[in-house]
Amino acid sequence: MSAKRKLRIGLIGTGFMGKAHVFGFASAQKVFDLPLQIELHTVADVTEAAASRAASDFGFAHATTEWRRMIDNPDIDIIDITAPNALHKEMALAAIAAGKHVYCEKPLAPLAADAREMAEAAEAAGVMTQVGFNYLCNPMIRLAKEMIEAGELGEIRGYRGLHAEDYMADATSPFTFRHDPAGGGALADIGSHALATAEMLLGPISAVMGDCVTMIGERPDGKGGLRKVTVDDVGRAFLRFANGAQGSIEGNWIATGRKMQHDFEVYGTKGALCFSQERFNELHFYTTSDLPGRRGFRRIEAAPDHPPYGRFCVAPGHQLGFNDLKAIEVAGYIAAIAGEAPEPFNFRKGLRIQTLVETIQHSSTQRQWKEIAD
Amino acid sequence: MSAKRKLRIGLIGTGFMGKAHVFGFASAQKVFDLPLQIELHTVADVTEAAASRAASDFGFAHATTEWRRMIDNPDIDIIDITAPNALHKEMALAAIAAGKHVYCEKPLAPLAADAREMAEAAEAAGVMTQVGFNYLCNPMIRLAKEMIEAGELGEIRGYRGLHAEDYMADATSPFTFRHDPAGGGALADIGSHALATAEMLLGPISAVMGDCVTMIGERPDGKGGLRKVTVDDVGRAFLRFANGAQGSIEGNWIATGRKMQHDFEVYGTKGALCFSQERFNELHFYTTSDLPGRRGFRRIEAAPDHPPYGRFCVAPGHQLGFNDLKAIEVAGYIAAIAGEAPEPFNFRKGLRIQTLVETIQHSSTQRQWKEIAD
Amino acid sequence: MSAKRKLRIGLIGTGFMGKAHVFGFASAQKVFDLPLQIELHTVADVTEAAASRAASDFGFAHATTEWRRMIDNPDIDIIDITAPNALHKEMALAAIAAGKHVYCEKPLAPLAADAREMAEAAEAAGVMTQVGFNYLCNPMIRLAKEMIEAGELGEIRGYRGLHAEDYMADATSPFTFRHDPAGGGALADIGSHALATAEMLLGPISAVMGDCVTMIGERPDGKGGLRKVTVDDVGRAFLRFANGAQGSIEGNWIATGRKMQHDFEVYGTKGALCFSQERFNELHFYTTSDLPGRRGFRRIEAAPDHPPYGRFCVAPGHQLGFNDLKAIEVAGYIAAIAGEAPEPFNFRKGLRIQTLVETIQHSSTQRQWKEIAD
Amino acid sequence: MSAKRKLRIGLIGTGFMGKAHVFGFASAQKVFDLPLQIELHTVADVTEAAASRAASDFGFAHATTEWRRMIDNPDIDIIDITAPNALHKEMALAAIAAGKHVYCEKPLAPLAADAREMAEAAEAAGVMTQVGFNYLCNPMIRLAKEMIEAGELGEIRGYRGLHAEDYMADATSPFTFRHDPAGGGALADIGSHALATAEMLLGPISAVMGDCVTMIGERPDGKGGLRKVTVDDVGRAFLRFANGAQGSIEGNWIATGRKMQHDFEVYGTKGALCFSQERFNELHFYTTSDLPGRRGFRRIEAAPDHPPYGRFCVAPGHQLGFNDLKAIEVAGYIAAIAGEAPEPFNFRKGLRIQTLVETIQHSSTQRQWKEIAD
Repeated sequence: MSAKRKLRIGLIGTGFMGKAHVFGFASAQKVFDLPLQIELHTVADVTEAAASRAASDFGFAHATTEWRRMIDNPDIDIIDITAPNALHKEMALAAIAAGKHVYCEKPLAPLAADAREMAEAAEAAGVMTQVGFNYLCNPMIRLAKEMIEAGELGEIRGYRGLHAEDYMADATSPFTFRHDPAGGGALADIGSHALATAEMLLGPISAVMGDCVTMIGERPDGKGGLRKVTVDDVGRAFLRFANGAQGSIEGNWIATGRKMQHDFEVYGTKGALCFSQERFNELHFYTTSDLPGRRGFRRIEAAPDHPPYGRFCVAPGHQLGFNDLKAIEVAGYIAAIAGEAPEPFNFRKGLRIQTLVETIQHSSTQRQWKEIAD
Repeated sequence: MSAKRKLRIGLIGTGFMGKAHVFGFASAQKVFDLPLQIELHTVADVTEAAASRAASDFGFAHATTEWRRMIDNPDIDIIDITAPNALHKEMALAAIAAGKHVYCEKPLAPLAADAREMAEAAEAAGVMTQVGFNYLCNPMIRLAKEMIEAGELGEIRGYRGLHAEDYMADATSPFTFRHDPAGGGALADIGSHALATAEMLLGPISAVMGDCVTMIGERPDGKGGLRKVTVDDVGRAFLRFANGAQGSIEGNWIATGRKMQHDFEVYGTKGALCFSQERFNELHFYTTSDLPGRRGFRRIEAAPDHPPYGRFCVAPGHQLGFNDLKAIEVAGYIAAIAGEAPEPFNFRKGLRIQTLVETIQHSSTQRQWKEIAD
Repeated sequence: MSAKRKLRIGLIGTGFMGKAHVFGFASAQKVFDLPLQIELHTVADVTEAAASRAASDFGFAHATTEWRRMIDNPDIDIIDITAPNALHKEMALAAIAAGKHVYCEKPLAPLAADAREMAEAAEAAGVMTQVGFNYLCNPMIRLAKEMIEAGELGEIRGYRGLHAEDYMADATSPFTFRHDPAGGGALADIGSHALATAEMLLGPISAVMGDCVTMIGERPDGKGGLRKVTVDDVGRAFLRFANGAQGSIEGNWIATGRKMQHDFEVYGTKGALCFSQERFNELHFYTTSDLPGRRGFRRIEAAPDHPPYGRFCVAPGHQLGFNDLKAIEVAGYIAAIAGEAPEPFNFRKGLRIQTLVETIQHSSTQRQWKEIAD
Repeated sequence: MSAKRKLRIGLIGTGFMGKAHVFGFASAQKVFDLPLQIELHTVADVTEAAASRAASDFGFAHATTEWRRMIDNPDIDIIDITAPNALHKEMALAAIAAGKHVYCEKPLAPLAADAREMAEAAEAAGVMTQVGFNYLCNPMIRLAKEMIEAGELGEIRGYRGLHAEDYMADATSPFTFRHDPAGGGALADIGSHALATAEMLLGPISAVMGDCVTMIGERPDGKGGLRKVTVDDVGRAFLRFANGAQGSIEGNWIATGRKMQHDFEVYGTKGALCFSQERFNELHFYTTSDLPGRRGFRRIEAAPDHPPYGRFCVAPGHQLGFNDLKAIEVAGYIAAIAGEAPEPFNFRKGLRIQTLVETIQHSSTQRQWKEIAD
């Protein structure tokens, strides 16, 4: 029936994010009228058992334990990397060299220098890339961006961004790769989301003053001892934006009681917006164009007025879930590969986030403001 | 690979609910470790073009314009009915007669008498049935039920339920099948959800006093004229429950500004619960077992602690969407067909809701309290 | 300096409400530019000690144990009754007969027949009266009324009112005068507030169907035994309004966890309002005149735009407290006595509330709808 | 009756804050069982007309245009200064020299050096002093402090404080004394409240990194021209506390739509608290001692459990207003003068806030972290 060109996926990694990607591919296919026909071609994992099981569970036609073979396979169009962060660079560069499009989970790489190498390789090769910053796909955050760009808030003056959770609040939770001095810490892990949202909404950050603090100095090493932790539990920054606005962001993984406080407030000369991921199907809007005595933050509920919400639910108020955001992310990437739209969040943007994170970290260590190149 | 038995679906209807069901099947398959392997076998619609297109878009192997042929096909296990309400009975009875399991969108039938015939036929035939009351699948409503049953609120005394939206608030929106005196009206259309939630949480309603009001007495007939409307725009009732509690519910489709106010409050001797579908990943809980001076409604956020949330998201606070509730509904039904669990919401329960609706309507007309058989 | 005429107060009762009234007089004097100069003349209580102490604490010039002498005293202008409900009628009629203005706490009298006698006596005598329904004095509720009357919601269709608390939720709390079959019960005690707010906002109720339920059938009698309770713990009603709207109210004193759930929602053809006394410095407003995609309930915060808020705070967001509402109540009454404004809530209105309460109670007992004379 | 010693007030300034103080004295007297009897003795203002009118309106026995005479009057016990900030020092030092107690509105003085002189003079003279930081008097903030000190949150790790309003958001609002380089700016004007709350809850701040930004560089000078503005519209800081916690605060007077966003969040090892002045009769509390699956921020409503709330309202949920906080402030000061309690917020504490503000300002100018002496 469909004469659509096929887009064949090779997935590396079958853990939670691997599953989330497969789910995103399936949902995107069902929900959107995608320009390409997704085909789950091959899945790679370390053991044959894991790979085979994933192929069966997820619906891939083939399984392998050799991700390099997958990259060599001319039948595969996209390499989708959900392997550990430390492997992202090697895998992505190999895939790019083979001319594949590359979809890579965040962070692009632990260090900005590596991320830069990856972004430049992709651009030189002309392949389409994507890094998974799914919160940005929320129709309500897109609405916020649209309202800001349309001038509904007037000139933007101030911003307050946050991403706080409590998954590291327990001092007895063990040392993991997230505590690795190379690329670890709350700012890199979740503060990066706050930075991505800030730049999506207000444009480039031009200067930062960082404050990265380790509150839990050692954690169980998994062998009965303790291991020193040097990365930040709280990483925050003062911000200057190229558009003249100022503000702050914070990443915090020891905020007891918080599960998903990815919040922002934007203040302009004529209005303001407030958002919390805790209620992410809402956006709160204040406008001075309302009559005196009738002004107030209004709670806009997600609705078909806010694309692509209507792809998921035909009526307002039904609400999207987290996995739906992943489907939107996938759909945007497929559209870019089909040449219908720019890449939503490519390696260059992933590099940008790593650069911001590292600059804030350096600023904190050196206790100095730092400029950020556009 | 998988030795799972196949469960082959025959879908009637390819509109919004048809799509939602397909989506539910796909998600359930991805998200849950289902005991049976779903196969999208055949889809039926009125025209060949519509059926073929749906087969291609939704991933069915076959298409047909003859739903009866589908019912005669021994390869098909479940007939899934998302056709107009008026056709539910004929289709379901035919499918049951052919020994198929039947999944039918709500309402089971416009009239309770028809719903009864369908429920009894299914029980006689021993097939597994399901009616789509997806709000009940919300982990937070299941949590509420669990808390009530465990006695966390003490003895239940009072209930206030609501389902209000504004999709009929505009008097110029035309007369549709939802305004049909047989089975139409706000109470039947959405008040039914409030009734289903009330009985899920507190058990059987034993008596009602109804109040069904038509506020918009005529609507455009689509031919340039106006057509008289006799069904309720607001349908409410006083309630008595078999467990001794009392309360009220309201269904309202002219509540300007409300998109999904499916709310309830439950008050017991030792605590209370409040819920709003507007923020359906939360449940608010008050308990007198908290210390004096420290009491208050606490906002519990959906988390892996609240099954099957963890099937969708491994971390708390990420949130489910409306379509995820449909996947939970499907998974429960598949488990029932596999003999692993009771039917979550079978035709007998669908009949129960129709009976409640009609009794409230009669009570309103006759201006009298009515008993309801258990 | 001030040439203002004096208004000399005679207060009966020195308990909590007596103190609240004195506080209201003092605040009103400080906050408003009252047309009359309040003078705390005499206070009456049962014992000389109580009366003397109250005179000293509250700032009255004289104390007495004989309320009738106070009424005979030509120097006193207003008799302010905060004595037990059962004494309201005798005191008020005597004061009216002596030509005094009368300020009486709610309820005006336990029975509507008594309230009627009081209202008629006051009208015949031409004295100014007031009953204390202080929630109505909230600037945000006045704003709601103003918005409704100005047509900002369009034509009003629906109303949902509530006053729920939990001060009687504990079955071991003893039998009091509030459980007296003559005038007692949740509907009379606090449902009366919900009725007063409903009529203030939408105008007269024309018909009711009541549902009054006793959930705690006996309470400690204070002598080691139990006493049968016949009054309602929950009293609710379906409503019809003379303006064509319909709705419901509920009074509930066993709503575990609720301290001041005096809430309402009003739905019109063009907008809606939601209010909760739990956050009584806010009013939530939805209007269809906002642009599509930008609509939502907006949270209007109390501000000088909403008179008489500005009398208390010069800037928005500072918030009024419960006692400030009492000062507004007093100020309105003084203005009426000075002939500058109509009585805000006179005995006739107090009678109206008693009539509504009793009609709902009778409707519940007789299980029949009841008309209510305008 | 009362044998209480009198406390005679001499008030300087009859504007809004003068009125608020008088109101506070009156309310405190009515609401609390004060150890001393307040007498409104003399009021001073610039013109005879203003002073006389204030005496009459506010209930002072005497009026004067010479504040120095009032200070010389041995009948007066307290000098209450609500005159312009620039005059605070001269007036306070004169009053202290005369042995009077001094109550001074915030800020104590535009510069910390002046505030220090005032604090030291008062201590040397042994008079009781008070600066008006009324938000701290809120029973819910006192509850927060009590909970933190009792260890209900475990060890405190993080803090986020804010005081944002929009009263300077309009670039056409004129230059005022609040824009004076000596003592002006958002951080000094309202950020000072955020600092006071932070130290009240967590104890001394030990280091700061400031960021003070001018967003509106010139404002109307009231003579048809524009005047350059150099003070901050937004002043924020990273914080370190002596107890080992870290955090941030922000003062912001251009936050369009915000009227009273005096908010804080405190995170400890075992729990968290969230508060907003926008709903200041509530405190939100999360504790890990709740059972898994039942945890969440609970909304504690102000109640008699939270002294001195019960002085104002005998039942929970009735709510205090802004002016009630002023009465609590006054009552605390009177108790200190009577020797019954320590001074709630004396000149030494007022100096502390000025020191914090100036250190943050210097830190911002010098772009360096600054230590703060305990």
